[in-house]
Amino acid sequence: MTEQTDMLSLSPIAYVESPYQEKFGIPRQPGLAPAARGALVMQADWARAEAFEGLDGFSHLWVIFGFHACEGKARLRVRPPRLGGNRELGVFATRSPFRPNHLGLSVLRLDAIEIDDRGVRLAVSGLDLLDGTPVYDIKPYVPYTDALPEARAGFARGAPHARLRVEFAPGVEAPPDLAQLIVQTLSLDPRPAYRREEPAGRVYGMRLAGHEVRWRVEGDCLRVIELSASC
Amino acid sequence: MTEQTDMLSLSPIAYVESPYQEKFGIPRQPGLAPAARGALVMQADWARAEAFEGLDGFSHLWVIFGFHACEGKARLRVRPPRLGGNRELGVFATRSPFRPNHLGLSVLRLDAIEIDDRGVRLAVSGLDLLDGTPVYDIKPYVPYTDALPEARAGFARGAPHARLRVEFAPGVEAPPDLAQLIVQTLSLDPRPAYRREEPAGRVYGMRLAGHEVRWRVEGDCLRVIELSASC
Repeated sequence: MTEQTDMLSLSPIAYVESPYQEKFGIPRQPGLAPAARGALVMQADWARAEAFEGLDGFSHLWVIFGFHACEGKARLRVRPPRLGGNRELGVFATRSPFRPNHLGLSVLRLDAIEIDDRGVRLAVSGLDLLDGTPVYDIKPYVPYTDALPEARAGFARGAPHARLRVEFAPGVEAPPDLAQLIVQTLSLDPRPAYRREEPAGRVYGMRLAGHEVRWRVEGDCLRVIELSASC
Repeated sequence: MTEQTDMLSLSPIAYVESPYQEKFGIPRQPGLAPAARGALVMQADWARAEAFEGLDGFSHLWVIFGFHACEGKARLRVRPPRLGGNRELGVFATRSPFRPNHLGLSVLRLDAIEIDDRGVRLAVSGLDLLDGTPVYDIKPYVPYTDALPEARAGFARGAPHARLRVEFAPGVEAPPDLAQLIVQTLSLDPRPAYRREEPAGRVYGMRLAGHEVRWRVEGDCLRVIELSASC
């Protein structure tokens, strides 16, 4: 057995359509922002109805994807944001993107299987993936083998909870779906840990669902101060 | 975005040492045979203690591996053994190895992290992997995001339970660890579904943990009739 013989060359079977159009602000795990809705758009070879027969019985999917925006940067040790960014851990003790082979793993809710003349789209929610992420495999979530609620989980015991109360400044308005996505995403506090101690006033921005969102944090309140369609 | 730009070339970071030395008889999901103990033997580049710091806090691992014995055989539709092998489903509704990119996903119990002059070995149990399987990623199991016990699971609702009572014929003896592995593995009934209606008498064999095991099924009793060290 040598590395040579077991090199594996992967082709994307799908691409992700996601409201997250840049890395900053993406929830750190799936399911934290249920309003983050998007799709897995199947590539031609696999955009065939028969490949999905029976999948409608499942509520969730595993997606094995590529951290395509982090390639070439595998590290032995990483600083998980979860630990405030100031403690190093071994890469295999984390879900960091800076890992060998750059594979990611997320469980997503399967909302619908859309099949028409143009192809096959799997509508999903709870996304923690960047728009345009290449997908290399899709598997059904099988609770009898995948769900281990009693597993011991080192430094990542509970879900990160919403830290911030999100308010919209007067005059800033969004349709309900977008408002919900903004609230769920920003309440998780996308700021790097080392910025959290800074005095209020710094303005942050992110592209989200075709919009540019700008906000400022004061205490435990995050105020959205600007929202505009991005080009 | 084209397939060309997002081809991903994977190198094994580890290989699996498993008691399962041939495909026949391997449990269909991890955790079904807790006595199936083995190791993930890290390859040189990643056999470094610092890459595992913090992993000892986790009880379980995700392993993304290659179905290296099934390459070149992706199908749109497969016949899950779970359904008796006579109903076809879409490949993405199953965990079948005959899938695009040939990636597998298993959760294993992490029993020990063994680091010495020769390298790094992760001792694992509950294996459902063939000996020599190439491993492309190892991630900690994080229950807050990975454990969804309420997920709906189509045709794969409950765990397959032990179907057969395993007995050893007089004179057939095994050390306790091997006996336990044999009982857990064979009680799941490795026979193809279409053989289950056959009259008793057919002798089956498999290589397991360096042994050749031979057995016969009579009703709900599986009798091990021969056990010898294999070469």
